[in-house]
Amino acid sequence: MQQITNGTVTTPQGFTATAVSAHIKYPDRLDLALIVSERDCAAAGVFTQNQVAAAPVLVSRETLVANPRHIRAVLINAGNANACTGKRGLTDARLTQTVTGFEMSCHFNQVLLMSTGVIGVPLPMEKMQAGIQAVVAELNHREAKGVERGEGGLLAAKAIMTTDTRPKHLAVMVALTHGHVTIGGMAKGAGMIHPNMATMLALLTTDAAVAPDLLQSLLMQAVDVSFNRISVDGDTSTNDTVLLLANGVSGVAVENSPDQAAFLQGLTTLCTHLAQMIVRDGEGATKFVAVRVTGTASPADAHAIANSIATSPLVKTALAGSDPNWGRILAAAGRAGVPFDQGQAALWVGNPGSAPLQLVADGMPTPYAEADAAAIFARSEIEMRLDVGMGTAVATVWTTDLTHDYVTINADYRT
Amino acid sequence: MQQITNGTVTTPQGFTATAVSAHIKYPDRLDLALIVSERDCAAAGVFTQNQVAAAPVLVSRETLVANPRHIRAVLINAGNANACTGKRGLTDARLTQTVTGFEMSCHFNQVLLMSTGVIGVPLPMEKMQAGIQAVVAELNHREAKGVERGEGGLLAAKAIMTTDTRPKHLAVMVALTHGHVTIGGMAKGAGMIHPNMATMLALLTTDAAVAPDLLQSLLMQAVDVSFNRISVDGDTSTNDTVLLLANGVSGVAVENSPDQAAFLQGLTTLCTHLAQMIVRDGEGATKFVAVRVTGTASPADAHAIANSIATSPLVKTALAGSDPNWGRILAAAGRAGVPFDQGQAALWVGNPGSAPLQLVADGMPTPYAEADAAAIFARSEIEMRLDVGMGTAVATVWTTDLTHDYVTINADYRT
Repeated sequence: MQQITNGTVTTPQGFTATAVSAHIKYPDRLDLALIVSERDCAAAGVFTQNQVAAAPVLVSRETLVANPRHIRAVLINAGNANACTGKRGLTDARLTQTVTGFEMSCHFNQVLLMSTGVIGVPLPMEKMQAGIQAVVAELNHREAKGVERGEGGLLAAKAIMTTDTRPKHLAVMVALTHGHVTIGGMAKGAGMIHPNMATMLALLTTDAAVAPDLLQSLLMQAVDVSFNRISVDGDTSTNDTVLLLANGVSGVAVENSPDQAAFLQGLTTLCTHLAQMIVRDGEGATKFVAVRVTGTASPADAHAIANSIATSPLVKTALAGSDPNWGRILAAAGRAGVPFDQGQAALWVGNPGSAPLQLVADGMPTPYAEADAAAIFARSEIEMRLDVGMGTAVATVWTTDLTHDYVTINADYRT
Repeated sequence: MQQITNGTVTTPQGFTATAVSAHIKYPDRLDLALIVSERDCAAAGVFTQNQVAAAPVLVSRETLVANPRHIRAVLINAGNANACTGKRGLTDARLTQTVTGFEMSCHFNQVLLMSTGVIGVPLPMEKMQAGIQAVVAELNHREAKGVERGEGGLLAAKAIMTTDTRPKHLAVMVALTHGHVTIGGMAKGAGMIHPNMATMLALLTTDAAVAPDLLQSLLMQAVDVSFNRISVDGDTSTNDTVLLLANGVSGVAVENSPDQAAFLQGLTTLCTHLAQMIVRDGEGATKFVAVRVTGTASPADAHAIANSIATSPLVKTALAGSDPNWGRILAAAGRAGVPFDQGQAALWVGNPGSAPLQLVADGMPTPYAEADAAAIFARSEIEMRLDVGMGTAVATVWTTDLTHDYVTINADYRT
């Protein structure tokens, strides 16, 4: 049993949040968010695999290894990624932790960091320091005034936006054996930050009590079928990070096997919705496309084929042109590095809630009516399923079309 | 010693070619080319790795295995790829071989095939049969009239064009121990054929005498550093094919080790020029970009990193915007799956013939002047070199920018 609400990272009990304008890059917008738990949290994280990982990624990764049971806060800034900043960047990130810990009266290793923004520019540490003082003071002030917690979560979701056109947040309530727990989350998009870098950030919070190792395992499973299944342009950034904090304030623990399954289901629902929000808000995107591959020997094979289709510029420009160009879809599948017999390939396309139309059977086009296929591809939500007849595994990847607006946004000069 | 000329596949001795309008798809343009050797040829081929390989790919691959010493002709059609056409497609391809062999009075297994064009549509066999009769008659007629051979090679290069804006051909003369040999070639682009498929085709001919196994080995080495190093959109097609025929008419054999090296050098020069012509004529491309990666442990690592940069939509849109966005270049390198220390990364950019400008040292931006970098990226030919400081291996990939015109061409509906 799970119930989805229009919640935020402060919907779970014991979490507060707010954001301030620290003038890191922009003169006057929220760009520094602080999310705090009233109790120490178990924490888990999934980080970019990019060799060029930003300082906050390196520091948060180390912090999670050193102190996975006593995390109190996450500080997130927009406007500066603190990437490609060398040793100075690492020092600045550690200093950011230290200042936050000092202002919050906790240890620096209880603070996790996320950054997004311009790369190759050192963090403006005076502004960061003033911003941290302001955001902690603001949070204390809001708590003293009894401001509604949901509002703070929304401010935080707004502060981490870059080229996102809207804040992305959600909460899921999950019924477990001994009561309800809530998981809240927010994310910012794979949309390109002006000027430099596409970064996907997500922060998830829960009032469930979960041991750190289990939390990490559950997060990795949820991320694998959600944030790792979206593609706007196939590029992964220096700063991509997903963090999950569990503070146990609900008094309900995730321990036994059915509760683990229920919690994972709720977490996966939350991550999938946030991931889809990112795709729907993709730069210049006019179409939301679910690419489902079935009939492979393993889920990894299905994922590889789905990803090859979802990142193909030829498929994505055909989608932009509302062209049900199945030949490009099959060719993209064929170059995924997964062996299959093209004579077994079958392809269906459709829109949510309507019956799918089969375009390909036995590797050849069916006698479908072009107008029917065109009508499906003219809609803004498209589903396709490719079966390759080699087994029973499946995977879905969500993607967008590749439009003129994408080129316009990303060809725009940085200065 | 090698000398490059504006030659064609008929520049080497003993080859003739011509083309006719077979009306396969277009009402009135050359679309069927025949290239014939006066003697049996050793032949080699490199074919698409795509699981969805077209019928002519499957048939030519089989033919090369069965009969690598006695090839007489290559028949190439545009307008129809004979891909995703099932068993009928295979039968049609075999029939095409048979008709060509009959008209030429040779065995069907002496004929190789290449096709490019719309996929999922059966070959129009009546038109093909009439076209084959016409092209063989035309070739005999031209021979009887003593038409200049170079002209036939040019007609063939024109007949295989799709969205290419110009025919692509070249010849290289190579001095060996016992005399000169000539290698000629033509190619068609990775530009998208309207309506369906990007296909890269190349046919190479030589009057050198080369044993089939050696020929295959030399072709694979040359292709690996030329046709396999270009990227317009990262998509590989159902029909990509490179063929090399050696008829020995020059009387000069490639046998000893220095001659093998010299021939390979000439072949590589030819393939590299043809590959670069394809990139320069890429769809909607306004920039020609050489991405050179140095300092890896292996050439494969360097190739992987260079390819990741050359196919990144974020890098390619930045190139379209003349934005020297080194952050995107480093991030694309970092996600290639090759471990390196970002603190060792160095990046130079420049234009051919001018001194390069270093943008990144030790993983961080140098204090370069933005105007200098912008001036480099504003030119139509750009070179970049990324050194990752892990070894001595190198690789170069050639690519283009990703422009509005690319989206326009490829979002255009097929009908």
